Amino acid sequence: MATLASVGELAFIDAIARLVNARAPRRGVRVGIGDDAAVVVASRATLVTTDSLIEDVHFRRGWLGPRDVGRRAFRIAVSDIAAMGGIPRYALLSLALPPATEAAYARGIVGGLVDDAAACGTALVGGNVSRSDKISIVVTIIADAIGRPILRAGARAGDPIWLTGPVGAAAAGIELLESGATAGSLVAAYRRPPLRLDVAAALARRRVVSAMIDVSDGVVHDLRHVCEASGVTASLDVEALPMTAVLRRAAGMLVRPIADYALYGGDDYELLLTTRPRADVTEIAALCQARGGMLSRVGVITRRGDTHLVVDARGHPLESRGYEHFRSKK
Amino acid sequence: MATLASVGELAFIDAIARLVNARAPRRGVRVGIGDDAAVVVASRATLVTTDSLIEDVHFRRGWLGPRDVGRRAFRIAVSDIAAMGGIPRYALLSLALPPATEAAYARGIVGGLVDDAAACGTALVGGNVSRSDKISIVVTIIADAIGRPILRAGARAGDPIWLTGPVGAAAAGIELLESGATAGSLVAAYRRPPLRLDVAAALARRRVVSAMIDVSDGVVHDLRHVCEASGVTASLDVEALPMTAVLRRAAGMLVRPIADYALYGGDDYELLLTTRPRADVTEIAALCQARGGMLSRVGVITRRGDTHLVVDARGHPLESRGYEHFRSKK
Repeated sequence: MATLASVGELAFIDAIARLVNARAPRRGVRVGIGDDAAVVVASRATLVTTDSLIEDVHFRRGWLGPRDVGRRAFRIAVSDIAAMGGIPRYALLSLALPPATEAAYARGIVGGLVDDAAACGTALVGGNVSRSDKISIVVTIIADAIGRPILRAGARAGDPIWLTGPVGAAAAGIELLESGATAGSLVAAYRRPPLRLDVAAALARRRVVSAMIDVSDGVVHDLRHVCEASGVTASLDVEALPMTAVLRRAAGMLVRPIADYALYGGDDYELLLTTRPRADVTEIAALCQARGGMLSRVGVITRRGDTHLVVDARGHPLESRGYEHFRSKK
Repeated sequence: MATLASVGELAFIDAIARLVNARAPRRGVRVGIGDDAAVVVASRATLVTTDSLIEDVHFRRGWLGPRDVGRRAFRIAVSDIAAMGGIPRYALLSLALPPATEAAYARGIVGGLVDDAAACGTALVGGNVSRSDKISIVVTIIADAIGRPILRAGARAGDPIWLTGPVGAAAAGIELLESGATAGSLVAAYRRPPLRLDVAAALARRRVVSAMIDVSDGVVHDLRHVCEASGVTASLDVEALPMTAVLRRAAGMLVRPIADYALYGGDDYELLLTTRPRADVTEIAALCQARGGMLSRVGVITRRGDTHLVVDARGHPLESRGYEHFRSKK
């Protein structure tokens, strides 16, 4: 089996360039892969973000096929662009791989990423490859803003809180993977996070959103970020949190109560947003539905309380226990 | 001693944000660290590049203090912007660190990076942190082009070839570090690569350059890239390669002949460029001198030969042995 060590760095980079030439969009790309830097046509208000996917930190090799590794790396990075109401245009990939990695596996990672990016109108325009002990993928996205970018800081008392789709399934999926499962819809929820770019774009165009974030660390944790940035408190209706029927049925197989997965699980990559009190979201709800999501009202913003940023419908504090990189294990 | 595990991810990110608020330029930064993505004012022709610095691949922990790790991560990334004749504006940092890393060490990395970036007018506007086994730093730079970006593809027969400063010292420095040295000017050449941004900007403004690349993998290897992209051959005057007096004096202490370090060493981060045949480079030479470099004519571009892309002054082929990530060890 050919490994990266046997095919070599330059041949692998050539293979990446061929993948990109065959599949990536070209609009706005003046100079792509192959020079010292890429040259792209950017809009004046440009969004930039970077995110990483590291073996044995964010995933284990047995959990994801190579194409899913690449897709996931793209999706978690581009989710930050969705959360700003942006349109991704260009991506950079910093890829570190062990020399013993099979060349086909490495190409699979890049192929999954390039295909998902292309489906979102995003061109891979550059990057670098390096040797490493563990697979490490850093994806940077350069995006156009749609009108004024949607920040975390705009939530006001009276604004309803919404989720664009079900939460908790991915965290339950990780638990099942850790106990040896290999398939099923919970595992699939972890493997392939949703793309909410077109829902985000519709929200941005309608100008109904007051604050938005993507749910990567858990609903309570990420809602706290909105509350901190906006200077408000959130009253979260735990009963209203959207969960898939499969997650509800899996209750008996899981270690914790299912509300825990929905509140604290993370890895959902749905959008958590607040809108103006009487905003019409009918069209957005239909779009969510059409994309496999489900727009759900999950609470309301209130004035900043004394101590707790996120409380349940009875006013009881919901503790924050999001993922903490230097303390917890995934 | 406080470690990242004891201070936690969020406190570390807060420390980064404070460093950035205290020291980074703000021009063009509409939304910096703290939201899902940064929002920056970009120019229409925007340059983007990413590069990585990985422990035990690109450096060993004993070789560099924490601030030098951060500075080096910035400098090797921004060197690609210099090679395009660009002006760096914004940086993103993806930082992966072992939880046992001392918090002060981690802050040192970020502090070195932020300070060097600020000195170049570049603001750290976002990024992410993660746990990992080894230190891994990925820096992405977003830059303005000065006029038309300078590519690798413009070299023509008759164009003289230039280097902006001495080569070979960094590779010799790595060899000395591997054999236990801790100081000296060769080690310093490795530790702190030159910044050639203002030389590059002057070159771009004068429009005298036909092709340019930065020397990261070795003069012969990187010159080959120019020849491949431009469809030409290069005749390299090995005797004319600029080397520091310290490197020449160190000849007896080094494993290989010193010309080897200059030709194949890499890690120099000087610019290798070709100009139009009668271009006036007096002013550029003075600027190089003022910045601790030395503009040196090291050869001439010829028509594409039959087989070899880089030959010496007598027409003998110079083999390519640049750094190959999945095969060699550094």
